[in-house]
Amino acid sequence: MKKGITQYAVGEQVDTFLLVKQSNKGVTTTGNPFMSLVLQDKSGDIEAKLWDTKEEHEKMYAAETIVKVGGEIHNYRGKNQLRIKSIRPARPEENQSISALVPSAEKSKEELYEELVQFFFEMKNPKIQRITRHILKQYQQEIMTFPAATKNHHDYVSGLADHTVSMLRLGKSLCELYPSLNKDLLYSGIILHDIGKVFELSGPIATTYTLEGNLLGHISIMVTEIAKTAQELEIEGEEVLLLQHMVLSHHGKEEWGSPKKPMIKEAEILHYIDNIDAKMMMLDRALEKTKPGEYTERLFPLDNRSFYKPEFGS
Amino acid sequence: MKKGITQYAVGEQVDTFLLVKQSNKGVTTTGNPFMSLVLQDKSGDIEAKLWDTKEEHEKMYAAETIVKVGGEIHNYRGKNQLRIKSIRPARPEENQSISALVPSAEKSKEELYEELVQFFFEMKNPKIQRITRHILKQYQQEIMTFPAATKNHHDYVSGLADHTVSMLRLGKSLCELYPSLNKDLLYSGIILHDIGKVFELSGPIATTYTLEGNLLGHISIMVTEIAKTAQELEIEGEEVLLLQHMVLSHHGKEEWGSPKKPMIKEAEILHYIDNIDAKMMMLDRALEKTKPGEYTERLFPLDNRSFYKPEFGS
Amino acid sequence: MKKGITQYAVGEQVDTFLLVKQSNKGVTTTGNPFMSLVLQDKSGDIEAKLWDTKEEHEKMYAAETIVKVGGEIHNYRGKNQLRIKSIRPARPEENQSISALVPSAEKSKEELYEELVQFFFEMKNPKIQRITRHILKQYQQEIMTFPAATKNHHDYVSGLADHTVSMLRLGKSLCELYPSLNKDLLYSGIILHDIGKVFELSGPIATTYTLEGNLLGHISIMVTEIAKTAQELEIEGEEVLLLQHMVLSHHGKEEWGSPKKPMIKEAEILHYIDNIDAKMMMLDRALEKTKPGEYTERLFPLDNRSFYKPEFGS
Amino acid sequence: MKKGITQYAVGEQVDTFLLVKQSNKGVTTTGNPFMSLVLQDKSGDIEAKLWDTKEEHEKMYAAETIVKVGGEIHNYRGKNQLRIKSIRPARPEENQSISALVPSAEKSKEELYEELVQFFFEMKNPKIQRITRHILKQYQQEIMTFPAATKNHHDYVSGLADHTVSMLRLGKSLCELYPSLNKDLLYSGIILHDIGKVFELSGPIATTYTLEGNLLGHISIMVTEIAKTAQELEIEGEEVLLLQHMVLSHHGKEEWGSPKKPMIKEAEILHYIDNIDAKMMMLDRALEKTKPGEYTERLFPLDNRSFYKPEFGS
Amino acid sequence: MKKGITQYAVGEQVDTFLLVKQSNKGVTTTGNPFMSLVLQDKSGDIEAKLWDTKEEHEKMYAAETIVKVGGEIHNYRGKNQLRIKSIRPARPEENQSISALVPSAEKSKEELYEELVQFFFEMKNPKIQRITRHILKQYQQEIMTFPAATKNHHDYVSGLADHTVSMLRLGKSLCELYPSLNKDLLYSGIILHDIGKVFELSGPIATTYTLEGNLLGHISIMVTEIAKTAQELEIEGEEVLLLQHMVLSHHGKEEWGSPKKPMIKEAEILHYIDNIDAKMMMLDRALEKTKPGEYTERLFPLDNRSFYKPEFGS
Amino acid sequence: MKKGITQYAVGEQVDTFLLVKQSNKGVTTTGNPFMSLVLQDKSGDIEAKLWDTKEEHEKMYAAETIVKVGGEIHNYRGKNQLRIKSIRPARPEENQSISALVPSAEKSKEELYEELVQFFFEMKNPKIQRITRHILKQYQQEIMTFPAATKNHHDYVSGLADHTVSMLRLGKSLCELYPSLNKDLLYSGIILHDIGKVFELSGPIATTYTLEGNLLGHISIMVTEIAKTAQELEIEGEEVLLLQHMVLSHHGKEEWGSPKKPMIKEAEILHYIDNIDAKMMMLDRALEKTKPGEYTERLFPLDNRSFYKPEFGS
Repeated sequence: MKKGITQYAVGEQVDTFLLVKQSNKGVTTTGNPFMSLVLQDKSGDIEAKLWDTKEEHEKMYAAETIVKVGGEIHNYRGKNQLRIKSIRPARPEENQSISALVPSAEKSKEELYEELVQFFFEMKNPKIQRITRHILKQYQQEIMTFPAATKNHHDYVSGLADHTVSMLRLGKSLCELYPSLNKDLLYSGIILHDIGKVFELSGPIATTYTLEGNLLGHISIMVTEIAKTAQELEIEGEEVLLLQHMVLSHHGKEEWGSPKKPMIKEAEILHYIDNIDAKMMMLDRALEKTKPGEYTERLFPLDNRSFYKPEFGS
Repeated sequence: MKKGITQYAVGEQVDTFLLVKQSNKGVTTTGNPFMSLVLQDKSGDIEAKLWDTKEEHEKMYAAETIVKVGGEIHNYRGKNQLRIKSIRPARPEENQSISALVPSAEKSKEELYEELVQFFFEMKNPKIQRITRHILKQYQQEIMTFPAATKNHHDYVSGLADHTVSMLRLGKSLCELYPSLNKDLLYSGIILHDIGKVFELSGPIATTYTLEGNLLGHISIMVTEIAKTAQELEIEGEEVLLLQHMVLSHHGKEEWGSPKKPMIKEAEILHYIDNIDAKMMMLDRALEKTKPGEYTERLFPLDNRSFYKPEFGS
Repeated sequence: MKKGITQYAVGEQVDTFLLVKQSNKGVTTTGNPFMSLVLQDKSGDIEAKLWDTKEEHEKMYAAETIVKVGGEIHNYRGKNQLRIKSIRPARPEENQSISALVPSAEKSKEELYEELVQFFFEMKNPKIQRITRHILKQYQQEIMTFPAATKNHHDYVSGLADHTVSMLRLGKSLCELYPSLNKDLLYSGIILHDIGKVFELSGPIATTYTLEGNLLGHISIMVTEIAKTAQELEIEGEEVLLLQHMVLSHHGKEEWGSPKKPMIKEAEILHYIDNIDAKMMMLDRALEKTKPGEYTERLFPLDNRSFYKPEFGS
Repeated sequence: MKKGITQYAVGEQVDTFLLVKQSNKGVTTTGNPFMSLVLQDKSGDIEAKLWDTKEEHEKMYAAETIVKVGGEIHNYRGKNQLRIKSIRPARPEENQSISALVPSAEKSKEELYEELVQFFFEMKNPKIQRITRHILKQYQQEIMTFPAATKNHHDYVSGLADHTVSMLRLGKSLCELYPSLNKDLLYSGIILHDIGKVFELSGPIATTYTLEGNLLGHISIMVTEIAKTAQELEIEGEEVLLLQHMVLSHHGKEEWGSPKKPMIKEAEILHYIDNIDAKMMMLDRALEKTKPGEYTERLFPLDNRSFYKPEFGS
Repeated sequence: MKKGITQYAVGEQVDTFLLVKQSNKGVTTTGNPFMSLVLQDKSGDIEAKLWDTKEEHEKMYAAETIVKVGGEIHNYRGKNQLRIKSIRPARPEENQSISALVPSAEKSKEELYEELVQFFFEMKNPKIQRITRHILKQYQQEIMTFPAATKNHHDYVSGLADHTVSMLRLGKSLCELYPSLNKDLLYSGIILHDIGKVFELSGPIATTYTLEGNLLGHISIMVTEIAKTAQELEIEGEEVLLLQHMVLSHHGKEEWGSPKKPMIKEAEILHYIDNIDAKMMMLDRALEKTKPGEYTERLFPLDNRSFYKPEFGS
Repeated sequence: MKKGITQYAVGEQVDTFLLVKQSNKGVTTTGNPFMSLVLQDKSGDIEAKLWDTKEEHEKMYAAETIVKVGGEIHNYRGKNQLRIKSIRPARPEENQSISALVPSAEKSKEELYEELVQFFFEMKNPKIQRITRHILKQYQQEIMTFPAATKNHHDYVSGLADHTVSMLRLGKSLCELYPSLNKDLLYSGIILHDIGKVFELSGPIATTYTLEGNLLGHISIMVTEIAKTAQELEIEGEEVLLLQHMVLSHHGKEEWGSPKKPMIKEAEILHYIDNIDAKMMMLDRALEKTKPGEYTERLFPLDNRSFYKPEFGS
């Protein structure tokens, strides 16, 4: 497999196609214009500066452009940067596709979808099953391609589906160990809990927050979607309310954006499953970049802690 | 006007009709059954104990029963109590009505409604006006009779309408003083902000929380209602989102139950108007019961403070 | 199986042997002495008052005494109490044993031990294995009989072992789902994390805190025990330090009694496993006592929340 | 009206008189001296750098100097800066006055004073009136010219008077809507609450904190001033104490600098009026600089929030 | 020396003169009036109940009355109470004096004063000395007799002087160990810091909070007193401001009632000295009542902790 | 005495030997390598930049190298920097020693040791004395040379011993003023409380945190050391536990790293002594660098406050 941009060592020469993920213009302290780019391929992204830029460069190197770049890796404040020596937009005849340059879930979205729908076979309550299935169908395209976040964890194409399936696996284990858990509620809660992200976020690539995302947030949006779906399917009863509550409370407490704390057992457990899956990904990602016997960089969503990577057993 | 139950002094004899507001049975430390009643008329409520009760008393003196009571006022831990000497359910031929025994807004619900609808004439944006008017019509009966809370402030028949109209008056003043405020958003926000209470609370009398109220809360319920109404009226656009945000953020911050802090100016001001109107009512109510030169009882929703009532000017 | 004391309904007559779990003397507001007892059998415990007691009763009905009690169940402030009509210490010839009157894990301590030791077969690192096994052997008797807490969860005979084995099962699932987890560290961390309780608590019955428990706490005690064991076994290296850190950080943050937050991945996950297992037990226990469609009592260690028990599916 | 310095677009040429508001010297990372200036006119202020400066420039371009500047606007990290091409101190014969180059209240201080004194006619309590009027007279010159703060809101010449009059208008509305409010206390509280700023701040131009401001703060200073004034006027009684309390508590709680929370109704309301008036100014100011459909910059005193400016109705 | 009321054991008979410290009437749950008294002598105080009281008893046994009481000590919820068998007001011919029945500092107020004034000889700055001495003289009578608090520590006659002198001794030690401390500021700060208590509290006996104490607090009152004194003595300069700041900041931070945190070194140290002296008294008082090997009652102002009294060395 | 590097004024020429305390390489925004050095002598340290460096410079100017430097002092963002004009490693024949270039306690470690051991003569409890003396002997070399911290206070050679002796002096004063304090516990607690630093920190020069320091912290390490020592000396009893508790609780509360709050009086006082001694050093150090009438830089460990240095008396 081709070497990714995050796998180069300091001092190595680079000559490859990359996708512009972010593009900002700036002015140096002495007043000269430059551009600050984030360039990516499947392996991740890297920062790069383009000095003494002109106005036409802004459009030429806007986000979502594919570029051919030559340069060298150097280290700036503990992080790799790409010192650009040559850059130009990719030419049509070079046949570069965006999808080949963005990170995505390891499994294909078809595989993930296949695994996800298996969980419906363990669900028994027809109301819960129908609501969940209907929402999944309605937004299937987005659910299977959106990331689960703009950064930190599952922030890649199909990240949302990846996160959901991983949580379902953990949910299944917990239902076996603690048989008093209601599978219908827990599985449905896992599937629905973050679907509001397909409204909150702009899309799978160069992801930003939408106005709706900023003013309402994915939790409130989804609570409303469940209500609408139940109305459309003419489903009534406690189940509708409990699914809304599962989604509403899954951040665990008010300060973290859930206007109600979990008030049913499955909602409490959903919060834990979400946390474990997100933290495992953040820790694995940070530890992969760390040598045994050293510490990771500070991880902001984990209380800004550095984690130690043991020497033994690695 | 007839003397209300809260206006009797310690030592005075009582002989009147009262409504049972709450009814709980208990057991004394030595194991004897008794009932703890809260009895009310238009002036407010008072606690009373019924000693050595039997099982049949539970039904006889359940909440929402009208009773004829004789007894004497005494003071228990700084609060008046009614020592019951005689009690019996009211007889049909005595023609007592519940509505005559519950506190309610000073103005009739018709007057309040009349005043409320005047504010629509100052609104210009047709989308905002139509959504707001539609929801008001749909739940008009409940909106005009429900309380705004189970205790503390506007906790009486038509309390919700009373609170809403009072806030609209203050909103109007603020729009005059700060003309950059958008009247459509602010008035609609005020009218809609607490309508979710008609789902959250059980009704105008002997009010408790519903399951929906406990698991979702009036804020989330109302955000969904606005979405459904817009869908029904086929209204789209930023206005829908902004109205949802006004309701969503009106508690001001996450810890107080708003999953998003206010992000538009009118939402920020709505939070203040709500606060001022609620606090004025709590303070006036507590100070009315306090003599000049003395302190009110501790007011829990005001950080448990006691307020001083000045001697001068009163 | 014989009906337990917690399974009687209000109004039912009781005539059975019970163990005095707690015994406190008091004086009524009018100055008469009485005793407040907590009586238990395998099913749990119940409060009871003994009126007009004399000094000799204090010794006669001290904690850990078995008594024969006759009386009736009544309800006091929402909780069942036993109104004692007759009481006397059990006679030797009645052959009552304490162990038959205290709640304990469902599985026997032998079965729990059998399951626990199986997990050693999956461990590979000899240093970790030897330290863990040595401590387990050294305190085996206490570990297999002590509770994990004085109240709330796993607060019964062999509760500590029950909690440990349940956590190991969950730990195993997590290692399968997230293969980057180091089994040696995680299993050993689970086994060791609460062994300090055998110093912190007084014993399996009528459990209280020791002076050592109050002044040092089970976490610091165990960190020291690991150091002593490593010294005794002449084991050195990172493993010793990491096991100490697993124990030290398992409460997750400083405010909860861990002077260091988790700084290795397995320590972070240990904290979650501990939480999930404790909360599942508290929730199951509270929900068992609750009817469908109603709320549990407030659960103090779960932020004082009441949980709702759904009607459907039960 | 002449175009203000904040109204130029990026790329435009500037050639105008400006006032040096702040002046700091620095050294570049490579050790070369430069000066960092904040230059202002009536419209607001802008940053500018002067490269390769010499020691004599420090005095030449000190704060409160008027300069003639030529240059070009460019954008640095999202904010406009002025790239200086030529600069020199203004010459006496150019007749530039500082007062023409500092922002100030829209109304003249005479108009503001006129409006302010009208409120005395509604006050009835002679003690309150005399104390308030005496302090107003004593510091009239400062009160009518000082800003209310060094930044964020009402941070311009006569800002304190502007803020006070605006609050009085709102106070009057509230007294009409809630007639139980005592006008004497509320109006006097509004007038006095921030007069301590004339001790806390250095003056109307290039404002900084005084030593007294840092060590005591405007609240404590004013509490003392009221005591001294009452002593001088030989006024005694509850009124003096209540006015001191109004000032003392107007920040609302201890963490915000009020050693006592409001304990009279008018003090509670004063806190709200102060908040609303300050926030309206901050929001209006930030939204004026924002296009419809976009967000303001983060506003630190509003919990660092960005506010959205709706598209409709603007 | 005569045995004090706090030195009787449970079961002992009492027949002595006591002072009524607090007197409240109540009603039993069954509606019978009673009085709840706190009775004291030099050794401390004890609670007592008077059953079936009549209206005339209220005046007869009001606070500050000396009574002759017969009865027996019993234990109620872990605290001693006096069961009254006989009670009557003391007769004039029995020559009982209040001062003989209230706890007070061990040293006489004359001795304390003598020691206090010695510290002036070490002060050099005439401005600081004159202000401090003037205030001491002006309120000498109150300063030498008031308590420093209504409860917890130094809550007895001359408690304020006792606390002040004890702090001066510690201040002197610190000045010797850390010679950079300014003695003038530190000694004066210690002497002045709590003098505001003579306004905040009602007096040396049956102490309550005054209106001024509630609305302004001893800190703000004293800051004003220093300003007035300086004005009267025509003293100006930094010293006045620094003394005000010492008093203003001595609670250490905003949440604890100091609107400014310490900003000079001596103010920081004053806060520590105050804390150590208050805590030593609370700890000594609680530990005196505790047997070796046991824990004190929970101490609310020490974060509600129980302290352990070691067995060895005692 | 020779002028130290922190005593030069801006603009002065430097030509002296310095020790490299920290050495980091960087890249300028335009991609050129440079090194950022912290250079020190006995007086303290100063930052310096070395531009256009090559790879061989990294080793040449690594931490703990002595260099001969020529250059000039300039001011960068309010702090002095050294602009390097010439630099080379010191030559062996120049006879420069590291110990002459690092700050250290004013007294020699021998004098400090002499003073420290005097305190043993006042201790009476043989168990406490033996444990304390044994640990002191065992780590004497490290205890007498290590700093007490990496920055802020006592961060120099023998800083730990300096801090300990200074605290002992204050402890002695407190024992005289409050004779109920147990000298054995307090003195031993002071001596032991920070010895864990000799494990937590890397050494007296160029000090960093060890892995053990990061994962366990000096408090937990020391609690274990006391246990091991007691075991080795075959000492048992409450004393061992109390010494462990003194160390465990000396940070005062959980958030500050003590898993148990102080539960004996001497532990509470130890926390205060530690605080006062550390803060006095931080304040003295900051105020020495400040002119009368000005403010210190912000002091992070003192809540980020600036302190004012009075004009009078200095």
